[in-house]
Amino acid sequence: MSRDNFVRLIFERLAAVTESEFDRGVALQDKGDGVFAASLDAGWVVGGGVNGGYLLAVIGNAVRAALSGSGLDKLDHQGQLDDRGQVDHRDPLSVSAYYLSATRPGPAVVRTRVLRRGRSTSTVAATLSQLHDGVEVDRISTLATYADLNRSSDDVRTTLVEPVLAPLEHCIPTAEAPADFKKIAPLLDRFATRLDPGSIGWAVGKPSGNGLIQGWFRLADGRPLDSLALLMVVDALPPVTFDLGMPGWAPTLELTVHVRAKPAPGWAKVKHYTRNMAGGYFEEDCEVWDSSGRLVAQSRQLAAQPRS
Amino acid sequence: MSRDNFVRLIFERLAAVTESEFDRGVALQDKGDGVFAASLDAGWVVGGGVNGGYLLAVIGNAVRAALSGSGLDKLDHQGQLDDRGQVDHRDPLSVSAYYLSATRPGPAVVRTRVLRRGRSTSTVAATLSQLHDGVEVDRISTLATYADLNRSSDDVRTTLVEPVLAPLEHCIPTAEAPADFKKIAPLLDRFATRLDPGSIGWAVGKPSGNGLIQGWFRLADGRPLDSLALLMVVDALPPVTFDLGMPGWAPTLELTVHVRAKPAPGWAKVKHYTRNMAGGYFEEDCEVWDSSGRLVAQSRQLAAQPRS
Repeated sequence: MSRDNFVRLIFERLAAVTESEFDRGVALQDKGDGVFAASLDAGWVVGGGVNGGYLLAVIGNAVRAALSGSGLDKLDHQGQLDDRGQVDHRDPLSVSAYYLSATRPGPAVVRTRVLRRGRSTSTVAATLSQLHDGVEVDRISTLATYADLNRSSDDVRTTLVEPVLAPLEHCIPTAEAPADFKKIAPLLDRFATRLDPGSIGWAVGKPSGNGLIQGWFRLADGRPLDSLALLMVVDALPPVTFDLGMPGWAPTLELTVHVRAKPAPGWAKVKHYTRNMAGGYFEEDCEVWDSSGRLVAQSRQLAAQPRS
Repeated sequence: MSRDNFVRLIFERLAAVTESEFDRGVALQDKGDGVFAASLDAGWVVGGGVNGGYLLAVIGNAVRAALSGSGLDKLDHQGQLDDRGQVDHRDPLSVSAYYLSATRPGPAVVRTRVLRRGRSTSTVAATLSQLHDGVEVDRISTLATYADLNRSSDDVRTTLVEPVLAPLEHCIPTAEAPADFKKIAPLLDRFATRLDPGSIGWAVGKPSGNGLIQGWFRLADGRPLDSLALLMVVDALPPVTFDLGMPGWAPTLELTVHVRAKPAPGWAKVKHYTRNMAGGYFEEDCEVWDSSGRLVAQSRQLAAQPRS
């Protein structure tokens, strides 16, 4: 083995040891021509399917790689310029996902196509597919516009109001849910979510009826949130329909997320709410506020009303 | 000419006479294989480019045509076999558009690709392109999920509150703007918009600073709104940044609209607002309420803050 290859091997192994669950979960193998292979971990399953936010982060990682010009970047979570000195569009600014069929744990492929490379933003189409009975079936189709959020202006005039949550120690850690519940939602072990007591009455048969679920959020292994992880955070809480007394599955048809800033380290506040349950569908809005009190992500999804 | 053909001719000519500006504007020529030719009318221009909402309706019309008379794919949303008969998903339920470059009046082509045909919804990818210096350039890339809104449940539990507007006769008809203004915004003649006096101070140098523009809306020629026209309505008012004292152009990067019901005939109420102007971008939310007081469309777009 050459000296260069030996050094590379050490760095790769080192990265594998220090990588977080999230980083391992979104890791990709570059197959060339904008195609990336993923291995979807069963640890991100909830209710029989793979969590939509985690899948969005997998696709988002492929889009980042497609725009980087020379394959994958393994270590740099913070979106810093890489050592080639290029200005890459590493940060999702807007991602829209259309969910076509339920994704299963196991192998998947993400096919990307760069639609436009611009000075301040670039846009990519990306589709996640899986083999089903020997046939490749599309699971999620997306469009995404990326930018370099390090270069964005620091002029902030947000008029939305930061959520008021009970102190961390008064909130409910969802990872402490009973084992029989976590068996159908192993996803909960990935998160250190602490739900506000005012929005978890549904867990004991007393939904508030407000259509609001909010709480504190960080990853269980302490891996700091970044622009890529925010794609997952906006779909990490229980569906807001739980708080309306509808405990069933609420399949997402479409989800668009706008990442508005890189999050500061520490606990984020996440707020989910709906204000238009009608005609068999509902919109679910999500806001993610970082520890500095900045609104770092806004998302809206359209989902089907649970049948139960 | 046979009797059948003669009858058909009369109906076709009759339709041509009664067609509205909007219907002529979104008319398509079917080129086969999911490709449709459009002729983008200069009457829908605002500020040098073609209005993004009108373009969304042109694309939406192509998606509708691509799905008409279609069969079902074998897999439905839950990954189950579905062997029922034909479905006609004529109504946009969710459409996400990524704006890649400025569209000019004149010929354009919309290429559609059906991603999934399901029992209750179908999803299509569609891109609008134009020739530029002899090369086909993508203008807008979209994903869209369609349904049959006639079949949707009539259970409505909307908690958003219908906008309170001044009576029609106290509102400002934008089509009465001075000729020099309408010269750069011929679009205004298509609309019978009447803006609420509380949100048009910007026109006389007194923006409210609230980031809110709302008013009454219908098409100037009286053509009733339908699910397709709602794609245009959500981008028909002036940018909400006008009300923040920023009169410049605010280019849209992404716009997603959820059509939640077919609108009742008559004047609609349209409300635009932003609550997160930050980092050089802002989100613009739009609500469209029909004359029966139902929230029929919700949209959010991400746009770049005007530089002026």
